[in-house]
Amino acid sequence: MSETSRTCSEKIGLPPGALIYVGAKKTHKVKVTVTRYSETEFQEETVGNPDSWEPEKLKPLVWIHVSGLHQTEIIEKIGISHGIHPLIVEDVLNTAQRPKLEEYEDCLFMVLKMFYSDRAEENILFEQFSLILISDGVISFQEGEEDIFEPVRKRMKNPQSRIRKTGSDYLAYTLMDAVVDHYFRVTEIMEDRIEAAEEYLFTDLSPEVLQNIHELKREILFLHKTVLPVRGFIGSLERIDSPLIRPATHVYIRDLYDHIIQITDTVETFREISTSLMDIYHSGLSNKMNEVMKVLTVIATIFIPLTFIAGVYGMNFRYMPELEWRWGYPFIWLIIILVGVFMLLYFRKKNWF
Amino acid sequence: MSETSRTCSEKIGLPPGALIYVGAKKTHKVKVTVTRYSETEFQEETVGNPDSWEPEKLKPLVWIHVSGLHQTEIIEKIGISHGIHPLIVEDVLNTAQRPKLEEYEDCLFMVLKMFYSDRAEENILFEQFSLILISDGVISFQEGEEDIFEPVRKRMKNPQSRIRKTGSDYLAYTLMDAVVDHYFRVTEIMEDRIEAAEEYLFTDLSPEVLQNIHELKREILFLHKTVLPVRGFIGSLERIDSPLIRPATHVYIRDLYDHIIQITDTVETFREISTSLMDIYHSGLSNKMNEVMKVLTVIATIFIPLTFIAGVYGMNFRYMPELEWRWGYPFIWLIIILVGVFMLLYFRKKNWF
Amino acid sequence: MSETSRTCSEKIGLPPGALIYVGAKKTHKVKVTVTRYSETEFQEETVGNPDSWEPEKLKPLVWIHVSGLHQTEIIEKIGISHGIHPLIVEDVLNTAQRPKLEEYEDCLFMVLKMFYSDRAEENILFEQFSLILISDGVISFQEGEEDIFEPVRKRMKNPQSRIRKTGSDYLAYTLMDAVVDHYFRVTEIMEDRIEAAEEYLFTDLSPEVLQNIHELKREILFLHKTVLPVRGFIGSLERIDSPLIRPATHVYIRDLYDHIIQITDTVETFREISTSLMDIYHSGLSNKMNEVMKVLTVIATIFIPLTFIAGVYGMNFRYMPELEWRWGYPFIWLIIILVGVFMLLYFRKKNWF
Amino acid sequence: MSETSRTCSEKIGLPPGALIYVGAKKTHKVKVTVTRYSETEFQEETVGNPDSWEPEKLKPLVWIHVSGLHQTEIIEKIGISHGIHPLIVEDVLNTAQRPKLEEYEDCLFMVLKMFYSDRAEENILFEQFSLILISDGVISFQEGEEDIFEPVRKRMKNPQSRIRKTGSDYLAYTLMDAVVDHYFRVTEIMEDRIEAAEEYLFTDLSPEVLQNIHELKREILFLHKTVLPVRGFIGSLERIDSPLIRPATHVYIRDLYDHIIQITDTVETFREISTSLMDIYHSGLSNKMNEVMKVLTVIATIFIPLTFIAGVYGMNFRYMPELEWRWGYPFIWLIIILVGVFMLLYFRKKNWF
Amino acid sequence: MSETSRTCSEKIGLPPGALIYVGAKKTHKVKVTVTRYSETEFQEETVGNPDSWEPEKLKPLVWIHVSGLHQTEIIEKIGISHGIHPLIVEDVLNTAQRPKLEEYEDCLFMVLKMFYSDRAEENILFEQFSLILISDGVISFQEGEEDIFEPVRKRMKNPQSRIRKTGSDYLAYTLMDAVVDHYFRVTEIMEDRIEAAEEYLFTDLSPEVLQNIHELKREILFLHKTVLPVRGFIGSLERIDSPLIRPATHVYIRDLYDHIIQITDTVETFREISTSLMDIYHSGLSNKMNEVMKVLTVIATIFIPLTFIAGVYGMNFRYMPELEWRWGYPFIWLIIILVGVFMLLYFRKKNWF
Repeated sequence: MSETSRTCSEKIGLPPGALIYVGAKKTHKVKVTVTRYSETEFQEETVGNPDSWEPEKLKPLVWIHVSGLHQTEIIEKIGISHGIHPLIVEDVLNTAQRPKLEEYEDCLFMVLKMFYSDRAEENILFEQFSLILISDGVISFQEGEEDIFEPVRKRMKNPQSRIRKTGSDYLAYTLMDAVVDHYFRVTEIMEDRIEAAEEYLFTDLSPEVLQNIHELKREILFLHKTVLPVRGFIGSLERIDSPLIRPATHVYIRDLYDHIIQITDTVETFREISTSLMDIYHSGLSNKMNEVMKVLTVIATIFIPLTFIAGVYGMNFRYMPELEWRWGYPFIWLIIILVGVFMLLYFRKKNWF
Repeated sequence: MSETSRTCSEKIGLPPGALIYVGAKKTHKVKVTVTRYSETEFQEETVGNPDSWEPEKLKPLVWIHVSGLHQTEIIEKIGISHGIHPLIVEDVLNTAQRPKLEEYEDCLFMVLKMFYSDRAEENILFEQFSLILISDGVISFQEGEEDIFEPVRKRMKNPQSRIRKTGSDYLAYTLMDAVVDHYFRVTEIMEDRIEAAEEYLFTDLSPEVLQNIHELKREILFLHKTVLPVRGFIGSLERIDSPLIRPATHVYIRDLYDHIIQITDTVETFREISTSLMDIYHSGLSNKMNEVMKVLTVIATIFIPLTFIAGVYGMNFRYMPELEWRWGYPFIWLIIILVGVFMLLYFRKKNWF
Repeated sequence: MSETSRTCSEKIGLPPGALIYVGAKKTHKVKVTVTRYSETEFQEETVGNPDSWEPEKLKPLVWIHVSGLHQTEIIEKIGISHGIHPLIVEDVLNTAQRPKLEEYEDCLFMVLKMFYSDRAEENILFEQFSLILISDGVISFQEGEEDIFEPVRKRMKNPQSRIRKTGSDYLAYTLMDAVVDHYFRVTEIMEDRIEAAEEYLFTDLSPEVLQNIHELKREILFLHKTVLPVRGFIGSLERIDSPLIRPATHVYIRDLYDHIIQITDTVETFREISTSLMDIYHSGLSNKMNEVMKVLTVIATIFIPLTFIAGVYGMNFRYMPELEWRWGYPFIWLIIILVGVFMLLYFRKKNWF
Repeated sequence: MSETSRTCSEKIGLPPGALIYVGAKKTHKVKVTVTRYSETEFQEETVGNPDSWEPEKLKPLVWIHVSGLHQTEIIEKIGISHGIHPLIVEDVLNTAQRPKLEEYEDCLFMVLKMFYSDRAEENILFEQFSLILISDGVISFQEGEEDIFEPVRKRMKNPQSRIRKTGSDYLAYTLMDAVVDHYFRVTEIMEDRIEAAEEYLFTDLSPEVLQNIHELKREILFLHKTVLPVRGFIGSLERIDSPLIRPATHVYIRDLYDHIIQITDTVETFREISTSLMDIYHSGLSNKMNEVMKVLTVIATIFIPLTFIAGVYGMNFRYMPELEWRWGYPFIWLIIILVGVFMLLYFRKKNWF
Repeated sequence: MSETSRTCSEKIGLPPGALIYVGAKKTHKVKVTVTRYSETEFQEETVGNPDSWEPEKLKPLVWIHVSGLHQTEIIEKIGISHGIHPLIVEDVLNTAQRPKLEEYEDCLFMVLKMFYSDRAEENILFEQFSLILISDGVISFQEGEEDIFEPVRKRMKNPQSRIRKTGSDYLAYTLMDAVVDHYFRVTEIMEDRIEAAEEYLFTDLSPEVLQNIHELKREILFLHKTVLPVRGFIGSLERIDSPLIRPATHVYIRDLYDHIIQITDTVETFREISTSLMDIYHSGLSNKMNEVMKVLTVIATIFIPLTFIAGVYGMNFRYMPELEWRWGYPFIWLIIILVGVFMLLYFRKKNWF
C-alpha cells in the first residue's frame, strides 16, 4: 500500500481534460456491467465488447459499472454518450486523484479509494472508485476486477429491497456504504498489525522490527490522508442542497457519515499509537543495552581486581617475603574469594542480577 | 478496557437497519424494567418474560430500561411497538457505536459509553448505553447487568423529587448525569494508576513498567476518544431547539456540560502526562546506565594501570635492576597505592561516586 | 499545587443542587464580611456569628465576602436570603469546579481559582473564588482565610475612588482584577523555578532533578488548565450583552482580558520550555555518559596493549632470545612509552580530552 | 533550495513602492516576449531592446512575459505604460515575496514560486513568478531564463485550443497550471530523496546521513511554507467575485485547487515522515551501539576470568602444590575450556550472537 | 533578549490607571520631539525641558515622539493635555505590555515591540513602542534612545513625499512599517545564529552547544510570542472600520500585513528547526559515543584474548611441554599475529573503522 504522485507529472504541459490513464498498467479485460432496474423489473447485462454497447437503449434506472480503466476509449465513449464534463472523465482516469465531491449542474461526482484485502496473505490493496450520480442512474468506475459489490447486487435482485423502491441517490449511497464498510476491514487488519508489532516490541528488537514499525507508520499516514477527505465530503453531502439527493436519503447519509467518523477516529488513534511504538522500541533498546552493560560490568569489576592481585604475586622481585611464607598461597586464595563474594553481594544489593 | 472495531465488519454487505447484535456474547437474562410515574403515582415492574409484556398498558410517563442486548427479538419488539426508526434500533444493537446525538422528528436518540469499576480489583469496565427520549417517556438500553441507576430510582420513589414533577427530558438528564458522574470515578482510578506509574518510574525500570505505561497510554487514548464526542453532543444538546427539551431543563444540561468539560480537560492532562512518563522512563534508563558505566569505569581505570605495573615486574628479562633492589617490592606497592589514591580522588572530584 | 477530582465522585447518585462542601476540611472560623457603600457612605462589618446576621438590613450597594466554605449552613442561608439558584450554591461549595461564567436571569456567576504564595517558602497555594454579581451588589466566596482583597478595601475607604462612584459591576471587576494580578506573581515564581531548573540541568543530573522537572511540568499543566478557561470567560464577559455590566465598565474588562491573555501566553511558553528541559536533561545524561566512556576508553586502550606486551615477556619459554639481551628491558620500556605517547596523541587529535 | 530573508532588510528606511530588485544578481539578458492572440490571429515577438518596444501597439489579447528582473528600468517602463500600481511593481521585483493574491480595482495580482529541476543533477531550483491579470491580457514575470511555458505556447499556436477561444483569465489559469504541474515534479524528487534516505538509514549511519536528513527536513519545511499560501489564494480565487474571472473558468480553477491540495497533502506527509526518519536514525544508532557492546561484552566476559586463572598460576609462591602436580597443566586447560564453553552457551541462550 | 513579567506584580493592589513606569531603569534624558508638518510646512523641535513645552501651540498635523518613559510626569502631562484615556497612559508606561490594538472613540492605540541590534556585537535589543493615532496627529513613545525613525524624518523633509500629502494615518503606517522592517533584520540575525549552531552541531558537541541551542530556542519562542499578536492586530487594522483610517491607506496596511505574515512564517520555521537542532545534537552525541565505543571494543577485543595467551605461558607449572619446545616462542608469536589479523579483518568487515 503506497501512493505515487509520479504519474501526475507525466501530464505536464497537456491541456486540462486530456484523457490519459495514469494508473498502473492492468492486463485484465475491462468489464462493463449495465444493470437496469425499477420496482418491477431487474436486468443485468455484461457488455464485454464496447462496440456492441448501445447506451440509448437504457431505460428506467440504470447502474453502469466499469471495472478497469486501462481502455480509455471505453470510458471516453461512456462520457460522451452521457454528456459527462471532460474534466470528470479526466479525473476518473487519473487514479492519483484525491478523494473529493464535485457538484456539477446535472450530476454529482465523487472519487474515493476502495480498500480490500487478498484473503490469503492479509495484504491490503486499494484502487480508485469514482461514482457519477445523475438523476436517472449511477455510473461507477473502479480500476481493477475485485468485485466488492456482489452483496449489493444480491439485494437488488430482491424486489422487496429498498434499492428497488427508491431512486438513484439511494443506490449511490449503497455503493459508497459498501466501500466504506470495507474500510472497517482495513482498520481491523491495521489493528492486528499494531498488536503484532507491540508483541514483538517486548521480545525482539532487531532492526527489522524498526523497519516494520516505520512501514506501519507510513501506511497509517497514507490511510489517514485517504480517509480524511472522505469524511469531509460525506459531511458536506449530508448538508448538500441538491435535487439529486432526496430528503429521505439524508438519514442514510448521516449513518454513513457516522461510520466514516468512527474510522477516522480509529486511524487517529493508530497514529498516536504508532508514534508511541517508536518510543517503546527505543526504550527497549536502551533496556537491552543496560542488561548487556550490567553483565560486562559485573564480570569485569569482579575479575579485574583479582587479576591485579594475581599479577602482583607474579612479579619477580628478589625480596618478596609473602612468596616465601608457607601459607601465602592459601591466604591469597582466601583474599580472592572474599573480594569476589563482597563484589557479588554489592551487585546483588544494587539489583544488577 | 479495549475497544474492538472487529464486530463491525461482520455486517459488510447487509442492508442498513439489519438487526444484529454485535457486542460480546452475554449470558445473563435480559431484564426489562418498566417504571410508570407521575407526580402522584409510581409503579415499577420487572418484565422477565417478554411474551407477557404488554406495551400498550403504559400510561402517564414511562421509563423502559433494558439490561442486555443479546436477545434481539426483545429490542425489535420494543422498537416496533413504539414506532422507533429501524436505524435507531440497529444503532442500539451495534455496541461499537461512537457516542452521538441524533435528532429525529419525534424523538432524540443518544448513545454513550457507561463506565464502572468492579469494586474489588479496580478494573474499569464499560458498556454501551443508549437512550431514546420521546415526549411521554424514556427508553434506555445497556449491554450488561451493572445497575448504576439505583440512586435514580430511589429518588424517583420520593414524591417530592424533581423527577416526579417534571417531564421526560428531566429523567433523560438524570440518567445521563448518572452515567457522567461515573466518568469522574474513572478519572480517579486513572489518576491513581498514573501516580502509581510515576512512583515506579523512580524506583524500578523493568520492561514491565514500560509495558504498563504503554497500556496506560492506550487506555487514556481510548477514554479520550470516548469522552470527546460526548462533550460535543451535550454541548449541542444545550443549544438544541427541540420541543422535547423544555427551557427549564437547559440549566441542568449546562451543569452536565460543565461536568463533561471538566472530564475532558482532565483526560487531556492525562495524555500529556502519559507522554511525559515515557520520556521519564527513558531518561531513567539512561541514568541507570550512567551509574553502571561509572562503576565499570572506576574499577577498570583504577586496576588496569595497576595490573600493567604488576605485569612489567613479572617480565623475565635477565637484566632488570629494580628486581634486585632491596626495597623494590615495597617501593612498587607505594607506587600502586599512590596511583590508586590519585585515581580515587580524581573520580571523587568528578562526582562519580 | 495539585488538583483532585476525587471529591467529585462522593456526590455520585445525589440530585443536582445537593449542598455538600467537597473541599479539603478547613478548621478556621468562617468569616463573613459585609461592606455597605455608596458615594457618600462606607461601612464594614464582620459578622462572626451567622445567627446575629440580618441580611434584610443591607442597603445601597453591598459586598458580602465569605472566607471559608466548610460551614455549609451559612452559605445556604445566604443563598436563600438572596434568592440564589440552588445550582449556583452547589457550585460555590464544589471546590473542584472548573473556572466558568454563567449567565442567569438576574445575576452573573463566576468561578475562578485564586493563587497566592506563602511568603517564606515560595510555595504556591490556590483556592476557589466564586463571585455572584447582582444588580445591587456582589457576593464573593473563598475557601480559606488568605486576605488578598485588603488593597481593594483600602481603596474603597477613599471616597474619591472609582469604586465608590460606580456600580456593582466595577466592584466585581476590581475583585477579579485583584485575583488576576496575583496570577502574575505565580508566573514569576514559576519562572524562577524554571530558571533554577535550567541552572541545575547544566551542573547536576541526578534523578531528583528529573523528578523536579516532571513536577514542574505537572504544575505548569495544572496552571494552564486553570488559566485557559478564565481567559475564555473574561473574553465573553467583554462581549456580553447583560444589563448587569454597564458600557463604561467594558474598557476595564478589556484591560483585564489583556492581562489574562498575557498570562496564558506566558504559561504556553512555560509549557514549551518545560518540554525542552526534559530533552536537555536527556542530552545532558548522554553527554555525561560520553565523558565517562571516554575516560574508560582512553585508560583501557592505552594500558591493555601495554599489559599485553608485559605479558609476552612474562612468558616462561626456555628460548626467548630478547630476555637474554643486555638492553632488552630498557628497550621494552622505550616501546611501552612510544605506544603510550602515540595513543595519547591520537586521542588528543580526536579531541577526547 | 534555501530561502533568504536577507535581501529584505536592504530596503529598511525606503518608502513603499521604491523599485529595487532584491533577488540574486543575474547576468543573462532580460527577454521580453509579447504574444498577441485572438481566435483568428497569433503573433509572437521577442523584444530584445526595451527602447524599441511600443506598448501602445498591443491589440486584441496580449501576453507579455518578462524573463529576468535585474533590469528594473524595463519592469518600471512596463508598469507605467500599463498603469500598474507602484506597490505591485515593487512586489514583482522583491523576490523574497510570500505567495499571495491581491485584488486591485482593475487587476488581479498573483505571486508564487516556480520550481524546476536541472535535468542532469536532479537539483531543485526555484524562482519567483508573478502574474498580473488585466481584462485584456496577462503580464507575467519570472526571475530566470528557464522556459517552462513552452507547452503553453505550443497549444496557443493551435487555433482550436481553448486558450485562443476564451479570455485572459483562462490564459492566467493555464500559466498557473503550468507552474503547479511542476510542483508535482518537485514532490516526486522529494519522494525519491526520502526513499533514498530511508534506504541509507538501514545500512549506513554516518553523521553525513544525519546531515542529509536535516537538510531534507529544511527543504520540506521550505516547500511547505511556499506551497501552503498558494493553496490559500487559489482557494479564494475559486470563490472570488471579480469581473476579471468569468464563471466558465471557475471549474478549471477548482481543478487547479484540487492539484494544489493534493500537493500540500503530500508535503504534510513528507513532514511527518522526515520527523520519523530522525527517530529511526537515532534508534539505528542505539541498535548499532548495542551490537558493538555485545561484541565487547562477549569477548571481555569470556577472557577476563580466563586471564585471571592464568594469572593465578603465574604467581611465584614457593608452596603452590598444583604447580608440581603432573597433570596440573592439562587440567587447567580443561577448566579454561569448560568456562569458555559455558559462557558461550550462556550468551547464545541470551541471543547475543 | 529575555522578557520579564516580574515588573507586573509590583502593581498588585493598585487601582487601574495608576501611572507607574515598570520598565528597566533608564538614565538617559527623556527627549520629546515635536514635528509639525503639512503639505507646505515642516518644523521639527526638540523639547528638552518639559516645563517649556506648550501643547496648545500645535497646529496642522503633529507627530510627538517621546524617547524614554522613565519620567512619568512628562508622559502624564502629554496624556492630560491631549485627553488620552488614563488606561492608555498606564499601558504606555507598562513595558511588559503584550502587543495589541485598542479602538477608543477618538483614537487608535497600538503597542508593539521594537527590535534593533547593536551593530558591533550583533546582540538583539528590544523595547516597547506605543503609538496613539488621533485625527490630527500621532503620539508615539519608545523606551530608549535608539533612533530608528531617522529615515522617516528624512522622507518627511521632502515636500514631495507621500507623508506630507496625506493624513496622520499614513504617518502611523510609516512608523509601524519602520518598526516591522527591523523585524526582518532580527530574523536575519536569528538565521545566522541558527546556521552557526548547525555548523557547530556537526563538529563540536560540548554542553555549551546544548546551552546555546536552548537559549536560541527561548529567544525564538520569545520572538514568536512577540510577533504573533502583531500579525493579529495588523490583520484587524486592515479590516477596521474607523474614520481614523482613510480607504486609500488600506492598501499600504495590506502591504504591512504581508510583511508581518512573512516574518511570522519565518519564525514558525525557526521553531521547527530549533526543535530539530536538539534532536540532531542528541543524535550527534550518540554518534560520538558509538565511535568511542568502537575504539574501545576494537582495542579491547583484540588484546584481551592475546593477553590471555601470554598469561597462559606465564604460568609456572612444572610440566608444560610447550615451554621446552625450541620453536615455542616464535610459534606463539605466530598465533598472536594470526588472531590479531583475523580480528582486524572481522572489524573491517563490520565497517567499524
